[in-house]
Amino acid sequence: MVLSKNTLNPNVLKAEYAVRGPIVELAQNLEKQGREILYFNIGNPQQLGQPPLTYVREILSLLNHPKLLNKMEKLQDLGFASDSVERAKKIMELNPAGLGAYSQSAGMPFIRQAVADFISKRDNIPTDAKNIFITDGASKGVDLILNSIITDNVGIMTPIPQYPLYSADINLFGGKLVSYYLDEDSNWGINRELLENSYNKARADEIDTKLIVVINPNNPTGSVLSREHIKMVLEFAKKNNLMVLADEVYQENIYHDEDKFHSFAKVAHEEGINIPIFSLHSTSKGFIGECGYRGGYIEMRNIDDEVLLQLLKIRSIGLCANTSGQIVTYLMVTPPEEGDTSYELYVRERKDILDSLTRKARIIANELDSIEGISCATPRGAMYLFPNIKLPDRNYGDEPADFAFTKYLVEQTGIVTVPGSGFGQKQDTWHLRITFLPPEDKIESIMKKFKKAYLDFIKLK
Amino acid sequence: MVLSKNTLNPNVLKAEYAVRGPIVELAQNLEKQGREILYFNIGNPQQLGQPPLTYVREILSLLNHPKLLNKMEKLQDLGFASDSVERAKKIMELNPAGLGAYSQSAGMPFIRQAVADFISKRDNIPTDAKNIFITDGASKGVDLILNSIITDNVGIMTPIPQYPLYSADINLFGGKLVSYYLDEDSNWGINRELLENSYNKARADEIDTKLIVVINPNNPTGSVLSREHIKMVLEFAKKNNLMVLADEVYQENIYHDEDKFHSFAKVAHEEGINIPIFSLHSTSKGFIGECGYRGGYIEMRNIDDEVLLQLLKIRSIGLCANTSGQIVTYLMVTPPEEGDTSYELYVRERKDILDSLTRKARIIANELDSIEGISCATPRGAMYLFPNIKLPDRNYGDEPADFAFTKYLVEQTGIVTVPGSGFGQKQDTWHLRITFLPPEDKIESIMKKFKKAYLDFIKLK
Repeated sequence: MVLSKNTLNPNVLKAEYAVRGPIVELAQNLEKQGREILYFNIGNPQQLGQPPLTYVREILSLLNHPKLLNKMEKLQDLGFASDSVERAKKIMELNPAGLGAYSQSAGMPFIRQAVADFISKRDNIPTDAKNIFITDGASKGVDLILNSIITDNVGIMTPIPQYPLYSADINLFGGKLVSYYLDEDSNWGINRELLENSYNKARADEIDTKLIVVINPNNPTGSVLSREHIKMVLEFAKKNNLMVLADEVYQENIYHDEDKFHSFAKVAHEEGINIPIFSLHSTSKGFIGECGYRGGYIEMRNIDDEVLLQLLKIRSIGLCANTSGQIVTYLMVTPPEEGDTSYELYVRERKDILDSLTRKARIIANELDSIEGISCATPRGAMYLFPNIKLPDRNYGDEPADFAFTKYLVEQTGIVTVPGSGFGQKQDTWHLRITFLPPEDKIESIMKKFKKAYLDFIKLK
Repeated sequence: MVLSKNTLNPNVLKAEYAVRGPIVELAQNLEKQGREILYFNIGNPQQLGQPPLTYVREILSLLNHPKLLNKMEKLQDLGFASDSVERAKKIMELNPAGLGAYSQSAGMPFIRQAVADFISKRDNIPTDAKNIFITDGASKGVDLILNSIITDNVGIMTPIPQYPLYSADINLFGGKLVSYYLDEDSNWGINRELLENSYNKARADEIDTKLIVVINPNNPTGSVLSREHIKMVLEFAKKNNLMVLADEVYQENIYHDEDKFHSFAKVAHEEGINIPIFSLHSTSKGFIGECGYRGGYIEMRNIDDEVLLQLLKIRSIGLCANTSGQIVTYLMVTPPEEGDTSYELYVRERKDILDSLTRKARIIANELDSIEGISCATPRGAMYLFPNIKLPDRNYGDEPADFAFTKYLVEQTGIVTVPGSGFGQKQDTWHLRITFLPPEDKIESIMKKFKKAYLDFIKLK
């Protein structure tokens, strides 16, 4: 047979993506049968009722139908803010072909410039628009870099637990996954010794490790790296001649006042560590939460122009990132400013979303932590809880124990989570990843169901 | 150095994508310097003034800002058709999370079903929504299939000339390009003998050819395959145990009354040829021309469920196609119907676009054909002319002669075309690919500039 599971590219079989794996499939099947399903497996805030920012949607609405733009009075009558209309007009001037035309492969030039300005301002470091590609979500930036640098025997250091995009891509492109553990006992921090151990072990296996992935704020653990830790990772990377891929899509999702987001680009610049750094950002997370638009960017630093040209060539095969996502990326990096008509509403909407996330993180963590057998710290960042769950040592067949529990949980309650085994975890420890995105008025009843299912599950024979 | 051109994945260096290669880069640099540049290198109709369909944009505008939906009177006052508003409401019911949420990885279920219904109705063949993935443009469908089936030594038959996405992807994924020539002397038709020769030559080289790519209507040649030819290709594929990838993105772009679009899926079904067929469609072409939205789908036929699951898993790594593109795909397959408020305007806009394309194809082909040294048939389909150009036999350095001419053409006139060498051509023949998308009122002056540049170029020493 010309096409069967066995004749596929074997890397396809190896690639696993737990966030959307068999548990989600089971849930979708139950949903088709009429069951109520609660998707807490994925950071998809608008699916769970988080509202979009009015400012973003007003402008998108106008850009999708630019004939409206000369009808200011009627638009205001419909509730549009005057600065949204002006902003949309300005964007049409900057990109007269509109959303229906392919842009340049790296993205619309004014958007790349706006991203460069955003980074410059955020970090107080020089940033060049030519090093920025606008992408369909951060995932496409990851695909581009990993596909371009992986050849046989190239190792990529990824944290454990990790966001499974990385292991999936590394397997798909035929690279070697070089794991380093995050230290659960110190709030899932990064530890130099664990990094060195991981690197040395790979070297002993004759793996040519070329890049380290760091996710900060972290998915799934919710930790936020201090400046010291970032500096340590950069020094480690420099010493071992590694590039850094800094997944910084949760940079706006920090919930403790004492924490602060430091970008790898900024710390590297300040410390004079000139190694190649790929920094990712996305419109899917933060307080924007526009996942469906697939917006984002990759910024590349300390990369030579010849390599940039090659990467641009590969980007160009897919023509360009979708234009709506490009616009959302633009609006993410150029929010309304004080004095603009939209400013007050924008600030209020942002505050409501972030305050609610802060509350929900705390409440759900406390609820989980109060269950005997489960321990869960309040996440400091990102959108996930990663509780440690004790599970009885019994025969689960071929499945890891946490997989068996998440399956039971879906079947009994409709609550979809991701087993820790999908992210990687230390042997004989079990975890779940749960987003803290449920609507606040539903948390109590959800947690009650969760608790009952857990207590029932551990009693099963 | 950890990152340099030499340490990149060597397949990255091999992948070339002429449609956006060095000629386009040169043009973009000239544009930055203030020169007027005319982009005829790429099928990007809205960049050249083709208007979007009002129906599509009204609905998108509302879906981007659903708060408007309960203001029917004011919307009508703004010019919205009542059925657009109703349609948008209906879509919000079918997808309550809105455009800001990730959809299922294969696409929103109601859109997959609508695509299945569209194919069923178009071809009068049974079609199952589970075999349909909504993609970010057709390119992403190609990436998915080629990445999944290519392993070392797997050959992919592609036409010459071909759309360079195919050669780029085949090189990027490490496969073998197995070329078959289209027959310029019989209107670029497909010829069984040339297919067999190409296949046998690859077999002699111990290449394991697994799939044949067919582009119909054809990019870049503008030919449209007859039902007989499609049947012949299917029989050839069946005999040699090949899958078929049918790139049918130009199915609405047929300009001669005597031609008719036949899908590979339909002919295969009618002839009882049950081989795996991947069929691609896109919102970027046809009369919709919404390139920037990156909408499209892939339909997979005679593929077993285990393989479908693997392909879905790979799709899921990128989460989902952008939602705006998914909606445009939905609207493409469910246009307004007779009796709907929008119907008349929709039909008129469609007719205007297709009539204009028909006229432009003829006019530009005639103009080109009238230049001594150039021969150009009127394209029967797609969006491109592929004139045969005589170029003097002189020293062009490392560059193919047609590359040198397209470079000269940009420098002298700002007209951007793609050299035939980017698509493949028989040795010692030279071609250009030119879209026939220029605005009608500019064609005369453009052709005058083109002719002068050509006549000057062939006289150069």
